[in-house]
Amino acid sequence: MMKVQSFIKGEWLTEGKETDLISAINEKPIAQLVESDIDYKAAVEYARTVGGPALRELSIHQRAFKIKFLAAYLMERKEDYYKLSSHTGATRKDSWIDIEGGFGSMFVLSSKARRELSDLPFHVEGGTERLSRGGTFVGQHICVPKKGVAVHINAFNFPVWGMVEKLAPAIMAGLPCIVKPSPVGSYLAYAVFKDIVASGILPEGSVQFVAANVPGDLLDHLGSQDSVSFTGSASTGKKLKAHPNIVENSVQFNLEADSLNACILGPDVTPDMEEFKLFVKEVGMEMTVKTGQKCTAIRRTIVPRERVEDVAEALKKFLSRTTVGDPTEEGIRMGPLASSLQAQRFDEQLEELAEVTETILSNGESKDSYTHPRVLVCHQPMTVEGVHRIEAFGPMTTIMPYDSVDEAIELTNKADGSLVASLFTADDEIAAEITLGCAPYHGRFMVINKDSAGESTGHGSPMPHMVHGGPGRAGGGEELGGARAVLHNMQRIALQGSPTTLMNIVKQYVKGAETKEAPKHPFQMYFEELEVGHSLLSDKRQVKDQDVEDFANLSGDHFYAHTDPDAASRSLFGKIVAHGYFVLSAAAGQFVHPDEGPVLLNYGLENLAFLAPVYPGDTIQTKLVVKRKTVRQQREGDLFPFGVVFWDVEVKNQDEVLVAEYTILTLVKRKNKLDIDLV
Amino acid sequence: MMKVQSFIKGEWLTEGKETDLISAINEKPIAQLVESDIDYKAAVEYARTVGGPALRELSIHQRAFKIKFLAAYLMERKEDYYKLSSHTGATRKDSWIDIEGGFGSMFVLSSKARRELSDLPFHVEGGTERLSRGGTFVGQHICVPKKGVAVHINAFNFPVWGMVEKLAPAIMAGLPCIVKPSPVGSYLAYAVFKDIVASGILPEGSVQFVAANVPGDLLDHLGSQDSVSFTGSASTGKKLKAHPNIVENSVQFNLEADSLNACILGPDVTPDMEEFKLFVKEVGMEMTVKTGQKCTAIRRTIVPRERVEDVAEALKKFLSRTTVGDPTEEGIRMGPLASSLQAQRFDEQLEELAEVTETILSNGESKDSYTHPRVLVCHQPMTVEGVHRIEAFGPMTTIMPYDSVDEAIELTNKADGSLVASLFTADDEIAAEITLGCAPYHGRFMVINKDSAGESTGHGSPMPHMVHGGPGRAGGGEELGGARAVLHNMQRIALQGSPTTLMNIVKQYVKGAETKEAPKHPFQMYFEELEVGHSLLSDKRQVKDQDVEDFANLSGDHFYAHTDPDAASRSLFGKIVAHGYFVLSAAAGQFVHPDEGPVLLNYGLENLAFLAPVYPGDTIQTKLVVKRKTVRQQREGDLFPFGVVFWDVEVKNQDEVLVAEYTILTLVKRKNKLDIDLV
Repeated sequence: MMKVQSFIKGEWLTEGKETDLISAINEKPIAQLVESDIDYKAAVEYARTVGGPALRELSIHQRAFKIKFLAAYLMERKEDYYKLSSHTGATRKDSWIDIEGGFGSMFVLSSKARRELSDLPFHVEGGTERLSRGGTFVGQHICVPKKGVAVHINAFNFPVWGMVEKLAPAIMAGLPCIVKPSPVGSYLAYAVFKDIVASGILPEGSVQFVAANVPGDLLDHLGSQDSVSFTGSASTGKKLKAHPNIVENSVQFNLEADSLNACILGPDVTPDMEEFKLFVKEVGMEMTVKTGQKCTAIRRTIVPRERVEDVAEALKKFLSRTTVGDPTEEGIRMGPLASSLQAQRFDEQLEELAEVTETILSNGESKDSYTHPRVLVCHQPMTVEGVHRIEAFGPMTTIMPYDSVDEAIELTNKADGSLVASLFTADDEIAAEITLGCAPYHGRFMVINKDSAGESTGHGSPMPHMVHGGPGRAGGGEELGGARAVLHNMQRIALQGSPTTLMNIVKQYVKGAETKEAPKHPFQMYFEELEVGHSLLSDKRQVKDQDVEDFANLSGDHFYAHTDPDAASRSLFGKIVAHGYFVLSAAAGQFVHPDEGPVLLNYGLENLAFLAPVYPGDTIQTKLVVKRKTVRQQREGDLFPFGVVFWDVEVKNQDEVLVAEYTILTLVKRKNKLDIDLV
Repeated sequence: MMKVQSFIKGEWLTEGKETDLISAINEKPIAQLVESDIDYKAAVEYARTVGGPALRELSIHQRAFKIKFLAAYLMERKEDYYKLSSHTGATRKDSWIDIEGGFGSMFVLSSKARRELSDLPFHVEGGTERLSRGGTFVGQHICVPKKGVAVHINAFNFPVWGMVEKLAPAIMAGLPCIVKPSPVGSYLAYAVFKDIVASGILPEGSVQFVAANVPGDLLDHLGSQDSVSFTGSASTGKKLKAHPNIVENSVQFNLEADSLNACILGPDVTPDMEEFKLFVKEVGMEMTVKTGQKCTAIRRTIVPRERVEDVAEALKKFLSRTTVGDPTEEGIRMGPLASSLQAQRFDEQLEELAEVTETILSNGESKDSYTHPRVLVCHQPMTVEGVHRIEAFGPMTTIMPYDSVDEAIELTNKADGSLVASLFTADDEIAAEITLGCAPYHGRFMVINKDSAGESTGHGSPMPHMVHGGPGRAGGGEELGGARAVLHNMQRIALQGSPTTLMNIVKQYVKGAETKEAPKHPFQMYFEELEVGHSLLSDKRQVKDQDVEDFANLSGDHFYAHTDPDAASRSLFGKIVAHGYFVLSAAAGQFVHPDEGPVLLNYGLENLAFLAPVYPGDTIQTKLVVKRKTVRQQREGDLFPFGVVFWDVEVKNQDEVLVAEYTILTLVKRKNKLDIDLV
């Protein structure tokens, strides 16, 4: 039988107290949890001294490539995980969310990080702040890896997704991790973790795994550079957040707790409308996917009072097709809960709710881990508090009527903070009113109509691109959200100093820093040869009346300020002025080298500001500086390996007045292949 | 005598227990603190129901203008505050940091918010996230005002700056505030607060003021939408952060605590160098400004072991010129501590430090509130913990020798989290090594050499542009940081839905949303007439071989891919391709209206991506859509009132393939003046 063991200090701990882990399908042992005597202090120290330094040596992009390759490695082994996953009670579809949803998130987060963050061990964030008139003292924010360890305490409901959506951002941030999954379903987390280790993709010390019911004195050993990310029940989470050592050392603590999420049917939606069917389907699906064991599941179904019966009937009809049973069997749409203990708790919570609601769909109590969908109705939800507080963690929802849009908003917000709410309406004015009315109380808000339903990823699915977490009851945390997911794991620091010194620290060109003339024309230099600060100062060009006239004719831009002296005299410019786009084009003419060379193309331009007009008779000169560089992966079909070089461009006139500044993005050939190049 | 009263629910509370507030100069009462029986529950409710709704009706820019006008209003009254400030023990220079530094921060934060955030009640953050292949389901983050109240518990050392640097961002975020200053110096905070109320600039209910030693049961009434921002001692801060109600309701808690900040002398700096003198001056100044009562003051002076004596001597010499006395008297460089209690605590803390250090400069104990600078030396700071833990809050520093760069880094980080550290070096390689080695432990890091010293704002001054707060001992908080300061006070929410629905919710064009043809050419429409989603679809233009040739000649850009068929055939394009800048220019030719009209000029361009090549023979067509709008203030010299309109531009070819997309920024005339217009 599989032994779920701890992986501490690079070793699997084989000795310890063994407890059976029970399959939710058949109540038989599927694996054994081996609880070893873990030296948590040493584990934390190992992460800090072995994993941390190894990760911090890599750039964010290198770490992100590792996450991408790891996701691909695990995806190849997905069928092993599907087999184990069914024992948690999950259908194939449920498991897809956990397994492929998890690996998919790794791909997205890796791609976002490489697109938006620096290809350095740290991230250079935002622009340079001018803190002095003369520009000799400036500021620059950077986000750096912390010299600590991230402790991830995960919930039982998503053994894979819940583990990798935290691991990926932390590793990309340069932070080694200690993962503590819930014992329930830990065999699945363990199987994936074992493959992570076996892959050899992550540096030694990057990850450790705690097989245990409770994580001993782990939190006692955390300090100011460490962080805890907890997913699970609000009560446990809050207890840990107030742990004396966590408070004493200002340990960063991210709490993501189950919440009483709501789905609202708009007042405009009648039963004949597409949005009505979509609404019922969404509620029914969210109730039963993962047997309702999702921290984002729809616990509260908020509908216009006159639609309560229609919704109740339609929902019952939808749920009548929800076949419950062994999820590995064909035709089964809903598996058991994760354990018989969960089933027992679910029944107890329903009992509590029964005191303040009417049960309109039930087939009695749960048996072993198996249960069935329940639909409750609370007729006076504005005055009954329990329905906004008591969470039954299984396939259930409570229908709550509202009498006005204001009441719909108030009801939705009554749960005092949730991970997500959603709204089905065909009317965008109603959408705006309800969404903005609810927004402060939720981490995510989804609005569906017939146009968006087809491609919707659903109420319950946190997307790696968007933040996940919510205020109040949901814990007040924030995770995911694209590149932001990585930054959550880093320390932001405000650097101040001279532009040149800051450039030499952050390895990226800082406005005003000293540049050095490139040894040859930079368009003739390979990616590896170009250094941050390499510059080209162009020849000078005088702009002629004829240039402006020719440009107007060639572009078709006959704006009066460029063509009509009379009208131009009344304009902000006072006289005929050259086109801004002419200045841009002429600047390119000044810095581009005509011959074939490593610089292949200019594919983008950022933050262009036209700062002063250029008049016929003025002379312009352009300075090009290598601002920053990022390696791109060579993929099948690419002719050669390449990288992206960002150039700072400044165009000045004969009086040294800056007339335009911007950044251009170019593709530049690399001389060398790297281990990330697949071709 | 001045009575420092509470301002609750729009009323000054005149009845209550009166306590004398003592001038630090002469130990005589300068004002009386009136501690009324405050109904905190009602105060919180008033903020939520009166102040909140009034603020949320305004756009972020409207709120930011109010902060700007308020700063100007207060700046006019600054001399009143200087008079009071001297009683806190502050010299004119000390007071400048607090008073004009405070109002200056309001100006900067207002300007940053208007430049970087949406001119809407909420902020539309970042780009639209594509969550589906077909683009019918997308994501957009927005940051919305919370429906709560911000409680600000402030420290005694900066009665003005400490109040307004928190008020300004919260008000701009749409969050009403309850300010609880330290009783020490509260007469100064009160004087400014009274003028804030008297100005009538902020909506009713925006601000309340608590005159009290401790804020009663205030924290018991806070919920998920509220926040606490605490500045002061780490011990009190941590106690409040773990307050049961704060934890239970996930109340956002920002802690900014005093820390043992360090200043490092680089190993390269010899006593004859400019950087040596600058270092000594910085340490001496930071020790004595505000009589050392700054949470950012330099408590630890970290120097190469061979420089200890030089630094000690130079520092003593510098401090010998620090005349101590009544700060209103001419020639006095350092006033008393804020109170005799502070002086007593300072002596006690020095006594503790004396056990592990050698005192090399002292003139004995403090008398009343008056004290004098002390310099200590700790010869073995790698093994003595106390010097990195015990904070003496007054004019002192401990010199600590280091034997290697690694040791300098380790010593600096030994305080386990600080608000700021700084480094004096002339060598940028050393700067990079020490800065990056220290970065994870500090909120701010300043590097000074002779180039940046002249304009430096100093080790001790948090700048409104840059984040303030630090990890670990410094509390783990983050405030300020430009527009980010406002967002710290808002709830981020991930919206998901169809592009059109999201556009109708966020009031900003979302890629893929339905647009509507503008009723006339949009360049002929005033700011007020242009609506988000208004569009112009241009005529089509076929690009000719001659166009490419003419453009190469006119721009001077003879890059081979545009001019040499042979070389072009070997390029990524495979054949001659039109210049990207030609496409940009021709697109402008397609959308610009030649006649005079409200659209005055195009002054910027953002996020340009060239997505597909345009070949001679291809036909291009351009679509222009109003993306977002912001009002600009009309200032003296402006010919008319105007606003900024951001346009989304898409250029497609004959196959409907997107070849370029970008955003342009234009100045557009307004028809109407507004109350923000000063002309």
